[in-house]
Amino acid sequence: MTDDRPFRFTIPIPSAVPSRVDHHIERRLSAMKGQFYDTQAYEAMLANEDLLLYEVYEIKRPEVAGELLMGISVVHPGKVGREFFMTKGHYHTVLDTAEIYYVLKGEGFMVMETPEGICAVEPLSPGQVLYVPPRWAHRSVCTSRREDLVTFFAYPGNAGHDYGTIEQKGFHKLVMEGPDGIEITDNPRWRA
Amino acid sequence: MTDDRPFRFTIPIPSAVPSRVDHHIERRLSAMKGQFYDTQAYEAMLANEDLLLYEVYEIKRPEVAGELLMGISVVHPGKVGREFFMTKGHYHTVLDTAEIYYVLKGEGFMVMETPEGICAVEPLSPGQVLYVPPRWAHRSVCTSRREDLVTFFAYPGNAGHDYGTIEQKGFHKLVMEGPDGIEITDNPRWRA
Repeated sequence: MTDDRPFRFTIPIPSAVPSRVDHHIERRLSAMKGQFYDTQAYEAMLANEDLLLYEVYEIKRPEVAGELLMGISVVHPGKVGREFFMTKGHYHTVLDTAEIYYVLKGEGFMVMETPEGICAVEPLSPGQVLYVPPRWAHRSVCTSRREDLVTFFAYPGNAGHDYGTIEQKGFHKLVMEGPDGIEITDNPRWRA
Repeated sequence: MTDDRPFRFTIPIPSAVPSRVDHHIERRLSAMKGQFYDTQAYEAMLANEDLLLYEVYEIKRPEVAGELLMGISVVHPGKVGREFFMTKGHYHTVLDTAEIYYVLKGEGFMVMETPEGICAVEPLSPGQVLYVPPRWAHRSVCTSRREDLVTFFAYPGNAGHDYGTIEQKGFHKLVMEGPDGIEITDNPRWRA
């Protein structure tokens, strides 16, 4: 691997599109079926337009321990009913692997929980680092009305993604807009 | 480890001192004996004052694979003779582990090489991410005359630090101030 040279790239703000992108993921409303609490609002929105909820710009590296996978996550502003736009959320397939987020722009929350049902919801704002310890599922939520939530993330190369558990169960906590501002509420649909 | 909750901290710019610090390292001129090319200039400076060259603010995590260790590195501006202030530089003890740097402030270079003697010297400026692949020793150099070089770094928890190899051999490349600006030159003292 000695021909595997160091490299660098720039994350220009406000565009947030890095100068190197190996893989660009676009997640639209249709990819989030069953994830938002208000299914009626979801179906009505989807019938109108398959909106782009978030994008991920990935930098590819070998998917082995010792390497670090990284990229930029951009969650767009918006709501499905009263629930803010968010990422699918996932556990790592290798559960004992952490993830780091550095917030570049915007406002939001990281919703997290363990397989034992311990929950954490942490606010995110620019200049903050969030550490997701091994074993915690995580989902980012954009709560700004106008601005994207932009984060730089990194995790061990062997981590892998388990989306299925969250797709099936959901998270315990929802991030909603209430009459007095942002509300963190229990998810009545959470399935054990 | 379910009581091991997610946490976050802020990196305020320009101070760069993170809101959470578990360990603060200060490296002074006296800790860099034999590292700068101009030994006469080094001894003269040291006789005058044991200057602070760089600081590291570490966030502690268990030192095991799957965790990520992280912190803030602050290299102060200055020179020993014509050679810019720099970090000691190191290999990882577990050679097959990478490191990520995100540049928050300042200007400089990352000087890197492999055990086989392949070299890379990459410029650093704010908004850039530098990926140091597994197997590459690395040292950061501050080339600004007035501003600190501030980077956020992260690497696998099991990586470890091997400072001895670089202390003994040095890096192949030096970052110097020349008559026409910054010069990347071969290190005549490099030892195989």
